[in-house]
Amino acid sequence: MPRGRPRVLLDGPIDKWLDQFLPHLSVDCVVFGFHGGDLKLLVVKWPGLDVWTLPGGYVGLEQSLEEAAHQVLRFRTGLRHVHLRQFQAFGRLGRKEAFGRKLFLTRYSDVDPDLWVFKRVVSIGYYALVDFQKARPTTDPWSDSCAWYPVDAHPPLAYDHDGIVGCAREALRAALDVPGAGASLLPERFTMPELQRVHEAILGRPLDRRNFQKRMLDRGGVERLAERRRGGAHRAPFLYRFTVSPDGVGF
Amino acid sequence: MPRGRPRVLLDGPIDKWLDQFLPHLSVDCVVFGFHGGDLKLLVVKWPGLDVWTLPGGYVGLEQSLEEAAHQVLRFRTGLRHVHLRQFQAFGRLGRKEAFGRKLFLTRYSDVDPDLWVFKRVVSIGYYALVDFQKARPTTDPWSDSCAWYPVDAHPPLAYDHDGIVGCAREALRAALDVPGAGASLLPERFTMPELQRVHEAILGRPLDRRNFQKRMLDRGGVERLAERRRGGAHRAPFLYRFTVSPDGVGF
Repeated sequence: MPRGRPRVLLDGPIDKWLDQFLPHLSVDCVVFGFHGGDLKLLVVKWPGLDVWTLPGGYVGLEQSLEEAAHQVLRFRTGLRHVHLRQFQAFGRLGRKEAFGRKLFLTRYSDVDPDLWVFKRVVSIGYYALVDFQKARPTTDPWSDSCAWYPVDAHPPLAYDHDGIVGCAREALRAALDVPGAGASLLPERFTMPELQRVHEAILGRPLDRRNFQKRMLDRGGVERLAERRRGGAHRAPFLYRFTVSPDGVGF
Repeated sequence: MPRGRPRVLLDGPIDKWLDQFLPHLSVDCVVFGFHGGDLKLLVVKWPGLDVWTLPGGYVGLEQSLEEAAHQVLRFRTGLRHVHLRQFQAFGRLGRKEAFGRKLFLTRYSDVDPDLWVFKRVVSIGYYALVDFQKARPTTDPWSDSCAWYPVDAHPPLAYDHDGIVGCAREALRAALDVPGAGASLLPERFTMPELQRVHEAILGRPLDRRNFQKRMLDRGGVERLAERRRGGAHRAPFLYRFTVSPDGVGF
């Protein structure tokens, strides 16, 4: 479980709050939700500027990487039990230092360029699959918007964050092979077309309905319930639920 | 390409050489080779002690993570063009700090416990697939042995390094699905039984000969040559070579 450290401490003298964190390190979270047949991405906006980034944070001196990522998720979505997977570390020189300093200068009149935050920061990338309906996007003093966008139509992101999203999508595609994949994106009971749409959104291509259904049922991890979804224009489709949880829900 | 920074600088006052590196960060390399039908692991030994670890190193202030990992590989094996893949960051509290200090005390009479190297170090894990025949294991002033062991029968490793090896094997298994996988472990021309043995060693279980051959040929990326391997006791087997290079050789 993440520790109960409050998140909004990043105020006052910059060098003082920076001292609470492991220098040169951050976590960035690629948060996916599923809504209206679309895969959505959670992005945050720098106050007063048209600058968007992934939600992220630094790593407390006594905090594991996972705890730091869970803390970002908990703060940004209100969710505690989130399917979170580390997928890659990003350590390219120049990935954010110059632009980061420019942004900080919009909030602090004078920023010491020798602070670690303006030198190299290596960021550990996590992706999260959350239930869109339950997430409550939340701003903080460092963001005046925290919002969902379609993953194929979000504002361009600062730093190397667009590249980080691309790597997260690739990792997510690879993870689709596991029975139960995508469970965290759907409500507890779902229809086969909804599950198919999740796979299609992640893969970025349409799938054949019959083959998809057969493959899902053959590989197990999903069971058909006695109930059907009522109220649609079409014949009421069966409801399904996952019987396995590869997503590690229960963190 | 890795930069030409000499590797063996870690001598003299400890705080001085630590200043060359990004604090609290390291790379650890899980180096796999294939020889005599076995998957081998390259491990190094602390001088004068029965303490074994993965080859690793710190990250230069102006060095990317990949460069740091390539530098370790180049130093430890003499190889420049190595298939190297980042697979996970390890940031658990207590993963090495206390034991690390104990080890350093065997070389320095007095070590400042406030140095970053004895606080938390987050390590970025890379695995490498190298041609066993071409690698030249090399020691340095911080190791009196650098040697291959069967991956299932190596000395227990210090810190969390046994766990890192386990994660690397898992990542390697997942990567076997890609046509051409394992190319870097084999010589340029190989027999189908040799390729099968590589897959078996990585998966840790025997595979059916006919199915394996069919699957390899069906998925492409490997071609049969006109020549056969001569000199064995059995009927001379055909030689094959890869026509794709998923392993990113040519770094």
